[in-house]
Amino acid sequence: MTNRVLVPAGSLQDGATIELEDAELHHLRVRRLGVDDDVIVLDGAGSSAQGSIRSLGHEWRVAIGAVHRAPVPATTVLAVGAGDKDRFLLLAERCTEMGMTHLVPIDTERSRAVDTRVRASGLERVRRRAREACKQSGSPWATVVEENGELADLPVRHPEVRWLLGEHAGGRCPQLQPDAAVGWIIGPEGGLTSGELEYCRVTLKAEPVGFGPAVLRFDTAAIAAGVITQDRRRAG
Amino acid sequence: MTNRVLVPAGSLQDGATIELEDAELHHLRVRRLGVDDDVIVLDGAGSSAQGSIRSLGHEWRVAIGAVHRAPVPATTVLAVGAGDKDRFLLLAERCTEMGMTHLVPIDTERSRAVDTRVRASGLERVRRRAREACKQSGSPWATVVEENGELADLPVRHPEVRWLLGEHAGGRCPQLQPDAAVGWIIGPEGGLTSGELEYCRVTLKAEPVGFGPAVLRFDTAAIAAGVITQDRRRAG
Repeated sequence: MTNRVLVPAGSLQDGATIELEDAELHHLRVRRLGVDDDVIVLDGAGSSAQGSIRSLGHEWRVAIGAVHRAPVPATTVLAVGAGDKDRFLLLAERCTEMGMTHLVPIDTERSRAVDTRVRASGLERVRRRAREACKQSGSPWATVVEENGELADLPVRHPEVRWLLGEHAGGRCPQLQPDAAVGWIIGPEGGLTSGELEYCRVTLKAEPVGFGPAVLRFDTAAIAAGVITQDRRRAG
Repeated sequence: MTNRVLVPAGSLQDGATIELEDAELHHLRVRRLGVDDDVIVLDGAGSSAQGSIRSLGHEWRVAIGAVHRAPVPATTVLAVGAGDKDRFLLLAERCTEMGMTHLVPIDTERSRAVDTRVRASGLERVRRRAREACKQSGSPWATVVEENGELADLPVRHPEVRWLLGEHAGGRCPQLQPDAAVGWIIGPEGGLTSGELEYCRVTLKAEPVGFGPAVLRFDTAAIAAGVITQDRRRAG
């Protein structure tokens, strides 16, 4: 099994020696790694390197080899009703796995009624979870988790994006250019209201895309959106 | 929000009055439903009906209207390395959501080392979770959770199935007939061994299908398999 550790975004430099955060040290010890063991070092912002564990007194550091910068991925935004915060942690993990570049929690009519909804105060945990998913998935890029917003903010925040609306009814997703900037809108549990749906279709010109006959949980729908996006960006 | 209740498979008959299991009663009370409220009644085996809550002394029953039998869905088998049992509960839920007809936990070399792996003794919980997912997703069919088996059992258990191998590298999934019987093989956490992969490719003639560059957790990969299957069975 490959062992990966996470370091702060932007901290990877050829030949550097980097101090590890406590959570990462703990992670390595749980995996029974020790001094001189090799690890893959990721910064969650496109850089990765081979590394080797070094001791410095009681502390461990990681000596970095040559740093590889991954190409910047095509923009893929997931705008999701800001529902239950625990499900949002899972969602953030899935977003990194699926190559989403941005996750935008949207305050919708129905998510506003959810007591446990994700709020500004909970975003740090969500961001950490998105970054931690780099280790499991090997993805060099963590999803950027933006501040909560409204549907009406989307065209301002992401003007270049072509919007798709994930629904259980809807058409088949069109073929996409490999570098097409795409954004998905997924309702909260309980769905978007008919007014919100109309806003998406008419103002954002979002194309409704179906994920099959069943009602998907929002985290399942997010994975569906990621899978379909990757599929449609592939040639042939 | 639609209120759905679950009754034992095969128990739905036109005009019947059905006793509810304790878990279902509790579910209705949490949702603050009462006598004469309407519910949708599902049996997880293709039958559904409009129902209405009736009281009988202190007990509640459901009076059933006309029963609708959903068409039998195309066979979609998910054979997954029998990893952590809690993740398998989530997986069973996802399988019902995604329209998988059968879930087969496979004892692989790497899943056998997992202490918390799903075993025969844990299958009842997994089955219950697959059925309960009918309520959230509205799917009339719960995924059938089979006994644990070996990769070598697959051709005997599901001889009619065309096998696809879900991997992070791999080709694009081919177009499928709407009624094509399809089976996916997904490794456990840590993946299939090279010997197991060879068995899948050579003996089962499984076509390797890629889900994108990242390493997916097995429950994410299962959703990816479901999404791609539904997409490829659609015309145009």
